[in-house]
Amino acid sequence: MKEYRNNEFFSIGIDFGSLSARGVLADISDGRIIAEAMMEYPHGVMADTLPDGTKVYENACLQHPKDYLDALEYIVKDMMAGSGIEAEKVVSIGIDFTSSTVLPIDKDFVPLCFNEKFSDNPHAWVKMWKDHSDFYQAGEIDRVCRKMGREYLSMYGGKVSPENLLVKTYAAFIQDREVFDASDRFMEAGDYIVSVLCGKPTLSSSCLAAKSFWKSDGGYPAPEFLEAINPEFADEIKGKLPANMEGAGIYMPGEKAGTLSCDMAKKLGLKSGIAVSSFQMDAYAAMPGLGITKSGTLMMIIGTSSGFILVSDEKREVEGVTACIKDTMYKGLWTYASGQASVGDVFAWYSNNSVPEKYEKEAQKRGISVQQYLTELASKLNAGESGLIALEWFNGNRSRLANSALSGMILGLTINTKPEHIYRALIEATAFGAKEIVNAFEETGVEIKEIFASGGVAEKNPLLMQIYADVLKKPIKVSVLTQIPALGSAILGAAAYDGCLNEAVSRMGSKEYIEYIPNERNCSIYNELFAKYHSLHEYFGRGENAVMEELRALAKLER
Amino acid sequence: MKEYRNNEFFSIGIDFGSLSARGVLADISDGRIIAEAMMEYPHGVMADTLPDGTKVYENACLQHPKDYLDALEYIVKDMMAGSGIEAEKVVSIGIDFTSSTVLPIDKDFVPLCFNEKFSDNPHAWVKMWKDHSDFYQAGEIDRVCRKMGREYLSMYGGKVSPENLLVKTYAAFIQDREVFDASDRFMEAGDYIVSVLCGKPTLSSSCLAAKSFWKSDGGYPAPEFLEAINPEFADEIKGKLPANMEGAGIYMPGEKAGTLSCDMAKKLGLKSGIAVSSFQMDAYAAMPGLGITKSGTLMMIIGTSSGFILVSDEKREVEGVTACIKDTMYKGLWTYASGQASVGDVFAWYSNNSVPEKYEKEAQKRGISVQQYLTELASKLNAGESGLIALEWFNGNRSRLANSALSGMILGLTINTKPEHIYRALIEATAFGAKEIVNAFEETGVEIKEIFASGGVAEKNPLLMQIYADVLKKPIKVSVLTQIPALGSAILGAAAYDGCLNEAVSRMGSKEYIEYIPNERNCSIYNELFAKYHSLHEYFGRGENAVMEELRALAKLER
Repeated sequence: MKEYRNNEFFSIGIDFGSLSARGVLADISDGRIIAEAMMEYPHGVMADTLPDGTKVYENACLQHPKDYLDALEYIVKDMMAGSGIEAEKVVSIGIDFTSSTVLPIDKDFVPLCFNEKFSDNPHAWVKMWKDHSDFYQAGEIDRVCRKMGREYLSMYGGKVSPENLLVKTYAAFIQDREVFDASDRFMEAGDYIVSVLCGKPTLSSSCLAAKSFWKSDGGYPAPEFLEAINPEFADEIKGKLPANMEGAGIYMPGEKAGTLSCDMAKKLGLKSGIAVSSFQMDAYAAMPGLGITKSGTLMMIIGTSSGFILVSDEKREVEGVTACIKDTMYKGLWTYASGQASVGDVFAWYSNNSVPEKYEKEAQKRGISVQQYLTELASKLNAGESGLIALEWFNGNRSRLANSALSGMILGLTINTKPEHIYRALIEATAFGAKEIVNAFEETGVEIKEIFASGGVAEKNPLLMQIYADVLKKPIKVSVLTQIPALGSAILGAAAYDGCLNEAVSRMGSKEYIEYIPNERNCSIYNELFAKYHSLHEYFGRGENAVMEELRALAKLER
Repeated sequence: MKEYRNNEFFSIGIDFGSLSARGVLADISDGRIIAEAMMEYPHGVMADTLPDGTKVYENACLQHPKDYLDALEYIVKDMMAGSGIEAEKVVSIGIDFTSSTVLPIDKDFVPLCFNEKFSDNPHAWVKMWKDHSDFYQAGEIDRVCRKMGREYLSMYGGKVSPENLLVKTYAAFIQDREVFDASDRFMEAGDYIVSVLCGKPTLSSSCLAAKSFWKSDGGYPAPEFLEAINPEFADEIKGKLPANMEGAGIYMPGEKAGTLSCDMAKKLGLKSGIAVSSFQMDAYAAMPGLGITKSGTLMMIIGTSSGFILVSDEKREVEGVTACIKDTMYKGLWTYASGQASVGDVFAWYSNNSVPEKYEKEAQKRGISVQQYLTELASKLNAGESGLIALEWFNGNRSRLANSALSGMILGLTINTKPEHIYRALIEATAFGAKEIVNAFEETGVEIKEIFASGGVAEKNPLLMQIYADVLKKPIKVSVLTQIPALGSAILGAAAYDGCLNEAVSRMGSKEYIEYIPNERNCSIYNELFAKYHSLHEYFGRGENAVMEELRALAKLER
């Protein structure tokens, strides 16, 4: 193993999440975090209007690429200033990003939305992973996969989801031909930022494989597959797919995608020429951060949405796995990706739209957030006491049911139901959703030996973590560190610097955990409640009553 | 027809509702309302604690009898003072009351809860109609009816509900023997107030028949029936049933139950000896107020809960009818009673527990109530646009499903769901619930020729009334008068004075209406939405998935 002295070299990691970006500056000898910084995206998620006031389409979740660039600059400068570390000691930079979060780029490598001609067009902006409005197009491509018997379905957990660059690109072709035609290519936002850092186009093989039907041994789908989707699209799309771009390098995260350009070095106050890692999908970046490398380890990243990643040396077909791909994070191991489309989002929706003034006032008075106050009240309830069951599909279901047209439900309401009852039921619903995923693995014979959790919600909400342990009936470890994905990205940067990913993980990954142990009495109540959740999961999720899909279709019709 | 001059004689009517009492002073020549008054019950509905702070049982809905007496005095005095009418011109008084709203009385005719020994015992207080915590006892009595093949089930719509004096009395026997033993009798609150007015025990035959297994031609159930419920109870209950009380007169509403006692005349500032009508159940009192006398007329009283009353010359067995009894309001006609356990209650629950600060602030700023503000926003939505379906069973279902352990549900939630979406979905849910009731009549061949609506919610919320018309696909008439049940009670008082109910209705009943005409486009969307509502109504309501009952049972277990 390479040896580094303390304070000799540092690596920067930046985690681009759904609402903000967070960075760490870490010592590459032991992973010690020297400085942290964070910036919320000024435009957040644009669900109602564009910056110029233009109304967007229904269920849109758009972002502003300038927010990413501004956050990058702010975070790096803030950390450097705060740490007192000389720029010369920073030898690498790694980033992770939500995906599939896609933007159209023009031939000068400028996001289309920066062009005045397109700035009032929602389709020209960054379409986030959680913008599921393209589920019709996902369905079309899914049917083509089925008809042609393509292996893609097994890579994507048996169903094509709208969280896919090819789907989003096809949707642009169908929905806004002007944007499609004006675009030179459609890129993952993570690849876009790494390309900006390096001053040349560079792509992540992990994300290509997980989110755009690309295979390391065959590239994009053959022409006849694309023609089966739509002959004209097949013709037009070829040059707009990122890995088909001239001069685009393709690298695994932890490999050197390029070096920091002079322009960007100046802008960020770093040394030019330092190693830049290929970007990792945000969920995966937490693995090195947590120090995970072994087969049989499940990692749950619980934040706005939740990402479940299981590393395994076995390859099976597991329902609800959105990608099962080799070499995504560690060479030779399969990573199974699954997850829940909305977790923290549901709690945020609830606290923004459904909490009465008296609760907001009480929280204010006590100097805590509304969610902290609700958590406090919900902690005093016993399992089962709320009399409620919820389905957490507020943004569809992207695990076993892989159907983004599903929706949320709260059942058991009475005139005595209080906000903390609903809040706790929503937490429990996300735990039951997690159990569906764990069951899918175990029913298929994929072993889960150990569970780790990270992410903002896991770190901030001990009640939620205890409920997860009680529902899953397994101990769960949460790192005491709070910036796990950013640390993971810094580790990827360090690996890009010296070429040894496993060593970087061992040296720099987290080593201290809080462990949540299942409470036997709650386990037994949650066993009962989960059976009820499961009956609703099957009834509404497997087509016996398609009311959720029908309501969405009707709502669309009515606008 | 008797002729009266204007300003010659007046009648007082008081409507005792769930949260307040409302009175009118009406000219008996033409029903013109000379004065109105209202008082909210100071203790409202006690769902958490008794006045001394004692915590009550789960799902309790208790009231304070002193609130009724105080409201009676305040309303009469306020109207008399405001009107300038001399006490000599007031010739009668009639009241209506929620039912079955029951209180235990001691042998000195004093409510048990006024006794210090019992003031910390929830079972000694008034148990409101909507307190459904006795559903286990209702189930037991239901099973006895079934086993013994008693005709009661056909009187009570095929199922015994907790809104029944015998059920509530039996529950007291089971749950709190001390209260049961200390009670001389269990009375309807309406009978209690009329008895106080007359200074002697007097009972309403309508309420006896509708809410306590009593029949005009046979009295209470035979001993073997009571023994089948519980032999000891059979023994103990006989003397505690109101119609078994020594000297208790039994009268139809509109008949003279007695005359105003000197004591009460002094207290109220009225002439002693004026006619007091037997009390009518609040829902029924609206019929004379609306001027309804004809077969085939459906009246919906939409307030905290909703009462549906259909007058018909036909007798059939209709699902969800909680009472089908002859001579309840008009001699020779059957009245079918059905209704929804919570309507305004659901909206109040929503606006008290689920509306964010920014909505409360905006409503305040504009000087309107939160519900008015929500109604305004919901009015701008199209039918179907919310993407939501709700079940309004926040207090169980007391219509077709007759199951108070059912609960509310909201389905179709997404992270873009806004409060006005949910509010409109809750309104629509109550309209769909109303349609279930109308369907039950029509499917059985009981004709509905005309629909009237009254009650606080019907009068205040044109959006809701339009949605009802669109869902029911029938025009609905709402009187321009706002105190329909109180006017109905004043009419019953006038009938008690001169002995001619039909004439009093013709003279004094409402004559001006707002008519809501179905909108064709919305009718067709609501047709689709109702089919979805109905599928959920059947799935959760008919035992295919008993999750609602199971959750309630589990919640009880967990306390």
